[in-house]
Amino acid sequence: MARTPDQFWSKSHIRVWVGHEVLGIDPVNQRIDVVDSDGHHRREPYDQLLIATGSLPIWPEIDNIRSAGVFSVKTLSDGEAIRAWIEEQRPKRALVAGGGYIGLEMADNLAHWGIPVTLIEQGKQLMASMDEEMARDLEPALQGLGVDVRLETRLEAVRSERGQVTGVIAGGQAIRADLLVLGLGVRPNSALARDAGLALGVQGALTVGPDMRTLTPHVWAAGDVVESFHRVSQRPVYMPLATVANKQGRIAGLNLAGGQEQFPGVVGTAITRVGGREVARTGLSTREAEEAGLSVVSQVIDTETKLSYFPDVAPIRVKLIAEAGTGRLLGGQISGGQGSAIRIDTLATALHYGMSVNDLLDLDLAYAPPFSDVWDPVQVAARVIGSKI
Amino acid sequence: MARTPDQFWSKSHIRVWVGHEVLGIDPVNQRIDVVDSDGHHRREPYDQLLIATGSLPIWPEIDNIRSAGVFSVKTLSDGEAIRAWIEEQRPKRALVAGGGYIGLEMADNLAHWGIPVTLIEQGKQLMASMDEEMARDLEPALQGLGVDVRLETRLEAVRSERGQVTGVIAGGQAIRADLLVLGLGVRPNSALARDAGLALGVQGALTVGPDMRTLTPHVWAAGDVVESFHRVSQRPVYMPLATVANKQGRIAGLNLAGGQEQFPGVVGTAITRVGGREVARTGLSTREAEEAGLSVVSQVIDTETKLSYFPDVAPIRVKLIAEAGTGRLLGGQISGGQGSAIRIDTLATALHYGMSVNDLLDLDLAYAPPFSDVWDPVQVAARVIGSKI
Repeated sequence: MARTPDQFWSKSHIRVWVGHEVLGIDPVNQRIDVVDSDGHHRREPYDQLLIATGSLPIWPEIDNIRSAGVFSVKTLSDGEAIRAWIEEQRPKRALVAGGGYIGLEMADNLAHWGIPVTLIEQGKQLMASMDEEMARDLEPALQGLGVDVRLETRLEAVRSERGQVTGVIAGGQAIRADLLVLGLGVRPNSALARDAGLALGVQGALTVGPDMRTLTPHVWAAGDVVESFHRVSQRPVYMPLATVANKQGRIAGLNLAGGQEQFPGVVGTAITRVGGREVARTGLSTREAEEAGLSVVSQVIDTETKLSYFPDVAPIRVKLIAEAGTGRLLGGQISGGQGSAIRIDTLATALHYGMSVNDLLDLDLAYAPPFSDVWDPVQVAARVIGSKI
Repeated sequence: MARTPDQFWSKSHIRVWVGHEVLGIDPVNQRIDVVDSDGHHRREPYDQLLIATGSLPIWPEIDNIRSAGVFSVKTLSDGEAIRAWIEEQRPKRALVAGGGYIGLEMADNLAHWGIPVTLIEQGKQLMASMDEEMARDLEPALQGLGVDVRLETRLEAVRSERGQVTGVIAGGQAIRADLLVLGLGVRPNSALARDAGLALGVQGALTVGPDMRTLTPHVWAAGDVVESFHRVSQRPVYMPLATVANKQGRIAGLNLAGGQEQFPGVVGTAITRVGGREVARTGLSTREAEEAGLSVVSQVIDTETKLSYFPDVAPIRVKLIAEAGTGRLLGGQISGGQGSAIRIDTLATALHYGMSVNDLLDLDLAYAPPFSDVWDPVQVAARVIGSKI
């Protein structure tokens, strides 16, 4: 989208071969096996190799899943294909499988197209990366758009006629749908690297150092195909997000060109908006912190995004998660109306530096009535949790 | 507003005497001279004394300044008096003197009341705490509200008839106005402390330590009457803002009750909104950094608050100011449409910890199309300035 192969060549003397598939990597002899769109095979040598094969959407292995009218949402062409299906087939009822970012955003968008939508999620709550009390308001937000939300409902089979989807079996029930959108997550597209013997880590993502080198000489990797270091849990995690991929790509590129840069890791920040409800999270959730063996104190506060006499004031709920005893900030979550979720960036910046919740009170955050109360909502939460550490 | 004297007593056993004026402080004998509203004088002993006398709006010493219809804007009663004047006198033309936060916000509000407004500012730009290229868009924003903005125009005299304001002389010209609002800044209300021999610092504000003690035994002070430590310039500054006052009051209160808390200082964050234009600043401006003897590199970038296919996308301009050679972040400023200015909090948090502009690139900030581009605008600026350090 951003540049053509010709532009790469004329601007940067980078040769781009499109329509080429890499079939194998030979790291010992430093070469790859390639086939082009005409079916011609060849071997190409490399001095340094960067693997940036990204991720693949997860398709469950269930009956009729490959029917026409079933889509995952990963690439630009996926989006174009869904739009074409809507315009040509005029679906009467859509089913979205998965209550994460993609599922929620697709349900929101399909509802805005005027298509009746059912969203199913196998877990007990939407947005599994957030704690339940912070994800809770997403369900009424979706229902407000007319979306039929069904939790604890697993996609079991697809029903089709003449190769086209007509519905699903989910949670033991038949649900009619002539458009099925899968938002069941992604997995690293690491088969090529695995077959070449590269070391795999969390969820099959490639293990890389902070300089984005793999453990195999002359081979680098970045983006959705690699694991990341989580600065709070100090463990590798799989965090296939666009921001992370962009940052890793920049570091890998600089180092391939002779630089000495390091990717310092993630704190797990993410944000989305559904039917006017904004949610965001960073760091560890209560559940993740407990799984990491940490002793956790948390606090949820409800306040408003700005002084209440403003017409565009919105509710904001902030949750802080801290380590008992030390007060170290472990994570934060926000749910609210317009202008609430972007405040997660304050917490993400604080987490990057390992602040305590008491440190949050010292931050010189912006105040004026159209923007915040005198104590920023994040600091209101910090004040309350401070007494519990 | 928040609590009555009775509530203070019943909730916290704090005795509050309203209608009492302190006439003098005797720090040697640890007592104050007080007069109550009935004119009775008495002396009160103290173990510890907190001075929280705040600030006073600046009234220039010019002809007829004390005419009816001339207001400063500091207390709730100031606001009520202005409203009463508008409702009773139906002013035909308002003049606002001063192009800082108060002046801009008052011009915006008076324009929304339907009163034609002239705003005069003696400097070459509005919002003197920001650099010119970042304050520039405020003028068209005010003009869009119908405000007549006149820069390099100093308030020289007030004209009045029968004790009521009828206009001003400003920049050598007569301007008619039957409402005059002063937004010429504030000064510390420190006369009482000065007379008691307490040490004064910047702009006559009281000198205090990080624990909010003055240099005089058993006397503490907090809020608009004291100076603050600036974490970037490492110098004392006078920063009479509500957020700072609240934080200092909390620290002073905790310490008076036996605590060991410290106020770590400010980074100079401020924000406002005028006619839909949002502006914010933190740290040092280019001018302030140069005045502090620092070698400065700066960068201004123009981008958008979110992906451009959203209907509520808005322009955002970010300026970063860094130290040449080291890349240490010295300050940041933002100007833009809805949703832009609150991002100053990321920079304020980064400044608190002494980050470099390169460190900003590492932050795991939130990305989703309704909220930001993959590289947050702050990081776009950091990328560009990085090559100039």
